[in-house]
Amino acid sequence: MANEPDATANGQSAEDLRWMTEAIDLASLGRGQVEPNPPVGCVLVRDSVCIGKGYHQRFGGPHAEVEALSDCADATGATAYVSLEPCCHHGKTPPCADALIRAQVARVVVSVVDPFDQVDGGGIERLRSAGIEVTTGVAKEAGEDLLGAYLKRVRTGMPWVIAKWAMSLDGRIATKTGESKWITGPAARTAVHELRASVDAIAVGMGTVIADNPLLTVRLPQIADAKPPGGTNPKIASSTRQLVRLVYARSRLPDLQTQLVQTASETPTWVIAGPQIANADLAKLADHDVETWQCESSDPIEMIRQSLLWLGSNDNPRGLAMTHLMVEGGSQLLGSFAAARQLDEVHAFIAGKCIGGRDAPGPLGDPGVEALTDATSLRISRLDSFDNDVRLIYRR
Amino acid sequence: MANEPDATANGQSAEDLRWMTEAIDLASLGRGQVEPNPPVGCVLVRDSVCIGKGYHQRFGGPHAEVEALSDCADATGATAYVSLEPCCHHGKTPPCADALIRAQVARVVVSVVDPFDQVDGGGIERLRSAGIEVTTGVAKEAGEDLLGAYLKRVRTGMPWVIAKWAMSLDGRIATKTGESKWITGPAARTAVHELRASVDAIAVGMGTVIADNPLLTVRLPQIADAKPPGGTNPKIASSTRQLVRLVYARSRLPDLQTQLVQTASETPTWVIAGPQIANADLAKLADHDVETWQCESSDPIEMIRQSLLWLGSNDNPRGLAMTHLMVEGGSQLLGSFAAARQLDEVHAFIAGKCIGGRDAPGPLGDPGVEALTDATSLRISRLDSFDNDVRLIYRR
Repeated sequence: MANEPDATANGQSAEDLRWMTEAIDLASLGRGQVEPNPPVGCVLVRDSVCIGKGYHQRFGGPHAEVEALSDCADATGATAYVSLEPCCHHGKTPPCADALIRAQVARVVVSVVDPFDQVDGGGIERLRSAGIEVTTGVAKEAGEDLLGAYLKRVRTGMPWVIAKWAMSLDGRIATKTGESKWITGPAARTAVHELRASVDAIAVGMGTVIADNPLLTVRLPQIADAKPPGGTNPKIASSTRQLVRLVYARSRLPDLQTQLVQTASETPTWVIAGPQIANADLAKLADHDVETWQCESSDPIEMIRQSLLWLGSNDNPRGLAMTHLMVEGGSQLLGSFAAARQLDEVHAFIAGKCIGGRDAPGPLGDPGVEALTDATSLRISRLDSFDNDVRLIYRR
Repeated sequence: MANEPDATANGQSAEDLRWMTEAIDLASLGRGQVEPNPPVGCVLVRDSVCIGKGYHQRFGGPHAEVEALSDCADATGATAYVSLEPCCHHGKTPPCADALIRAQVARVVVSVVDPFDQVDGGGIERLRSAGIEVTTGVAKEAGEDLLGAYLKRVRTGMPWVIAKWAMSLDGRIATKTGESKWITGPAARTAVHELRASVDAIAVGMGTVIADNPLLTVRLPQIADAKPPGGTNPKIASSTRQLVRLVYARSRLPDLQTQLVQTASETPTWVIAGPQIANADLAKLADHDVETWQCESSDPIEMIRQSLLWLGSNDNPRGLAMTHLMVEGGSQLLGSFAAARQLDEVHAFIAGKCIGGRDAPGPLGDPGVEALTDATSLRISRLDSFDNDVRLIYRR
């Protein structure tokens, strides 16, 4: 179905666009709860009136189409707006294409065709075979934006990488002596915890483990009883998954006394180790309930690539592919992700401070590009301020 | 008048705040045209109705109070809202306090008391002696924001320093090979030219002169005939002053073949030279109509301080104190201004690019601070986006 023609600019009626935008907005409500499934929304419309709507709310739960159909007594003759092609395979739930056919809808409007190999146009084909009119590609850009992480995983087998850093107005993440607490204020730091609560895993490098001995849990001040380990956070608890803390340890493992290792029995802690690290040392971490995985390559870029494939597969210790990986630093690890061309989204927090200093570190500690045309290009997605700090979100 | 009590939070009636906000908004219209005078606005109100308004429009022209009084037939019994204390001295125009007394206003509300030693509360005193009720400090923070540059010059004798830089999302102003054209897009670069059009002078260091051979004029695409030299730009032409291009040349002078020297007879070009530079070399620049001024100190921080005092005095070649100095780079000069604690305002343009690189330069090339508490703190003033770029304006 690679050649499925999309609705053209002319072919997208204002009404189609309007309802599809609502379906996409609905879909976004499932984000953070449905992964590794895609977030999907569905709106049923008859005679320009919405007669039912729904979205995929949690992993393992009913799909958007089924939610919308059970929200309306009779969908006969209706148009179904679905943000992603209805599935045609038996997964955890029966095929949604069949449910729409049984409900006798007259037309299905799809934003994004699902590249997942068990669907990949098959849902559309099944609908058309049943005599249902199908239009695709409506509000496609917004639909793909919402599905960015899902589409990356299906196409490459890797999770979507969100790099987060906090820097001064002059682009420094610490002073030349390494002081970095705190560059941004409390409101910006709360936004970081909210971001943590929405991803599958947080990654740091060994430099950060040594310098900061971080806990990497979700601590949100508005949740009175929120305290480490992160499992007590309702946002996390309501999800089927638990936040994983990930350490990239190319040549050196975290000390057994670090907070990450000491709390590994309560909050999952995984270590991605370089090939030259001794098995005996890995075994000591395993004794503290740390999951370890040894990479075949010691090349930083290749380590990123291999680890992302592992995290994006069902072979990781969670047994379920990861969709969103947040990389918090330090500059060496963030630089390796940049060099590996794996920065899918950047959340740059910028503070009203000028630190200065030729030797104060910037966010990306890789060798960097020579020509501007080789720089990673991202497009602006969102711009917020938190008290005296600013957050810029750019994405692929 | 240092102890003049301001209107307290309780004392600021909603009506006073409302009219003073209008006076401050009016005042801002004069910015860029009235310097080295302060921008001032005045609103005359009787029975909650505006009966006249005006602002100081250009250097040498009538003050705001006079403009407002000539905008109304009879101001008897009115309240005058003035964003800065009315003057009581004969400058280029007669004292405004006297004009308000003659017009028989009943009350004068002032936002900011003028620290200029020929006023400094004297205007308020004169009004009160004439039986007029005076309230001060209404919308004082907004009033002082607008007057930041004027207040700095009056208090320290130095112009307000606006640092401008364009950097990648990871805080680099060039790649490690020095490529910097262009980090930001055309819309952001147009905003830079608009900023240039509003200041007295643009400063660069010798590193930038050597690397970029810049012209440093105002080139705005919407002005068809705008071309270097900047004098053809109506924004500049309409002002009493002409943009000055300033080169900080601590140990080395610009080559006679550079664009700056070659166009010095058309657009003012001044060189601030270090003490060890030979008089004969300065004379060669003077032959090309470059104004030169030799600093007593070769210490970068002391050079910044001495040069700012010179620029902020009437002893500079223009014969008129400068109010706004824009520093465009490179990182060494910007770093010296940071180290001298002379960054009053920062316009950081940020692009959706990740350059990376431990060796790619950041905006500030000074030694930098060791402790975060020693960093220059600025507060957020404005946040805009230009296509895929963002501009953050922070100020003291």
